[in-house]
Amino acid sequence: MTGSSEGSIIRILRDKLGICGPLEDVESYRFGSRRFVIATDTLVESTDMPPGMRLADAARKSVAACVSDFVVKGVRPRFGTISVVLPRGMPKRGVAEIGTGLKSASTEFGIKILGGDVSEGAEIAITATLCGVAGRMPARRGAGTGDGIFVTGNFGHAAAGLHLMLASRAGRARYAKAFARPRPGIEFGVRAGRYLSSSMDSSDGLARTLNEMARQGRRRFQITNMPQDRGLEWVAGDLGISASEMILYGGEEYEMVFTVPQSRIRRVTGIAERCGTKLTHIGVVEGGSGVFLPDGSKVEDRGWSHFG
Amino acid sequence: MTGSSEGSIIRILRDKLGICGPLEDVESYRFGSRRFVIATDTLVESTDMPPGMRLADAARKSVAACVSDFVVKGVRPRFGTISVVLPRGMPKRGVAEIGTGLKSASTEFGIKILGGDVSEGAEIAITATLCGVAGRMPARRGAGTGDGIFVTGNFGHAAAGLHLMLASRAGRARYAKAFARPRPGIEFGVRAGRYLSSSMDSSDGLARTLNEMARQGRRRFQITNMPQDRGLEWVAGDLGISASEMILYGGEEYEMVFTVPQSRIRRVTGIAERCGTKLTHIGVVEGGSGVFLPDGSKVEDRGWSHFG
Repeated sequence: MTGSSEGSIIRILRDKLGICGPLEDVESYRFGSRRFVIATDTLVESTDMPPGMRLADAARKSVAACVSDFVVKGVRPRFGTISVVLPRGMPKRGVAEIGTGLKSASTEFGIKILGGDVSEGAEIAITATLCGVAGRMPARRGAGTGDGIFVTGNFGHAAAGLHLMLASRAGRARYAKAFARPRPGIEFGVRAGRYLSSSMDSSDGLARTLNEMARQGRRRFQITNMPQDRGLEWVAGDLGISASEMILYGGEEYEMVFTVPQSRIRRVTGIAERCGTKLTHIGVVEGGSGVFLPDGSKVEDRGWSHFG
Repeated sequence: MTGSSEGSIIRILRDKLGICGPLEDVESYRFGSRRFVIATDTLVESTDMPPGMRLADAARKSVAACVSDFVVKGVRPRFGTISVVLPRGMPKRGVAEIGTGLKSASTEFGIKILGGDVSEGAEIAITATLCGVAGRMPARRGAGTGDGIFVTGNFGHAAAGLHLMLASRAGRARYAKAFARPRPGIEFGVRAGRYLSSSMDSSDGLARTLNEMARQGRRRFQITNMPQDRGLEWVAGDLGISASEMILYGGEEYEMVFTVPQSRIRRVTGIAERCGTKLTHIGVVEGGSGVFLPDGSKVEDRGWSHFG
């Protein structure tokens, strides 16, 4: 029997548990008049922490990744727990670094970390589970024909940073930082959330995110403008990888990919300006299916995935 | 620099995060008029899943361990998420077994598992995070002089089961089951919770639990009656370990240890009868400090701990 892909693992588990709704960035549960929102994210040493990544950054990133799931749904995470698995013999200094990273995330994102669990294992793994209370949340599937397609932040930078870290190449600290210290824009997400027709976290890569949103929304996503920049082109050239490969398929950006009805675009771009959030209008939603580049080629539904 | 003990790791992390309250089984967060309750528990392959333990049981136990944290606080867990770390090449059958175990826990304990996260790692790790809404919860520290000390269920059985599994000794399935399929008594906990002066989950072992409750409550716990049984004595004899060692220090029982004011003992024992919960009145709370056996010897503050 062969190994399972991430997608098939999720399908098997959801099937066994009888979870039938569409895949979402967060889960929600109605309790009385409140809609309780929860999301969980695990960072594992051998998979998510390349050599050279500081423990404090890894700990912070486990929380940031989970914050990103909330941000794209316009929900402010309020509190949460952390489960830390550590190998035997972990020095106190390493534990303190993890604590420092968690504290930094807690302060930066305004989250109360209440407590958690500590276990022993073969390698470091940090699981953040965050909770909040929601109003209306934009689904992954809500894109409407004619809506504008937008992204926040930069794409390809985190992948470039990971490549540079794996190649032990110094310099270009901003790329390593894009990988090690993602900064989901909580204020923009929380304020703009109600005006979006659909929204999803981009951490599995831009291509996979756009394909998932197009599939769930039963629409064609026409890209008119890639979220590209000159600096990335230089780094990509040095690394011998095409910039558009990194932008579309690199992954690890904890940015928002969302659609907005035309009538609300000015409002949303205004919020982005006030929050200092970089926004790129990358395309338009059309009838049909699939995701297409300006030259008519198809954006493949692949990207970074566990269980490669 | 030497490795860190579980206790020192928890201290370092709580210190860095500025968490200053006493250690509890669950965390809580006031939101509007509600008090949200959350707890998280991770089971790791190399530490918590001995050879011969079925994956379905391991998955179920990750949820059961977390349920136990709620039960001792009298709170019904309502919903939660699961994060699963799996090694590359995990066969579909193994994934399905994990799904079956999670589903079985979900049904048995009446919890809605909403979703979660899947990651790749060197070994299996399953983190359950559960949520609920609380009224008054009995703290670990609330024991009052004169209160009765009680435990639910059997002690030493899970440790005996673990020893038998590690020694690959068949037979005596009830002990292996006590280890692999703990059954926290949710109905008793939820109904009795409000009548208890203090309460704590026993999973770190009876000795450690009693010592923690005595220390937090600033009282002396006098044991008058060990929760012992003939069957365990036979198994312990076979294994060459004393039964009282297993009962006090073996751990892995997901049972309740609690204290009850004298005026409420009849009410609590009545609830136990109606729920079919085995209750043992093991001692009395006195002024002073420490935990003492009938022969006057001290119950040491040691037990099962990660990071040996």
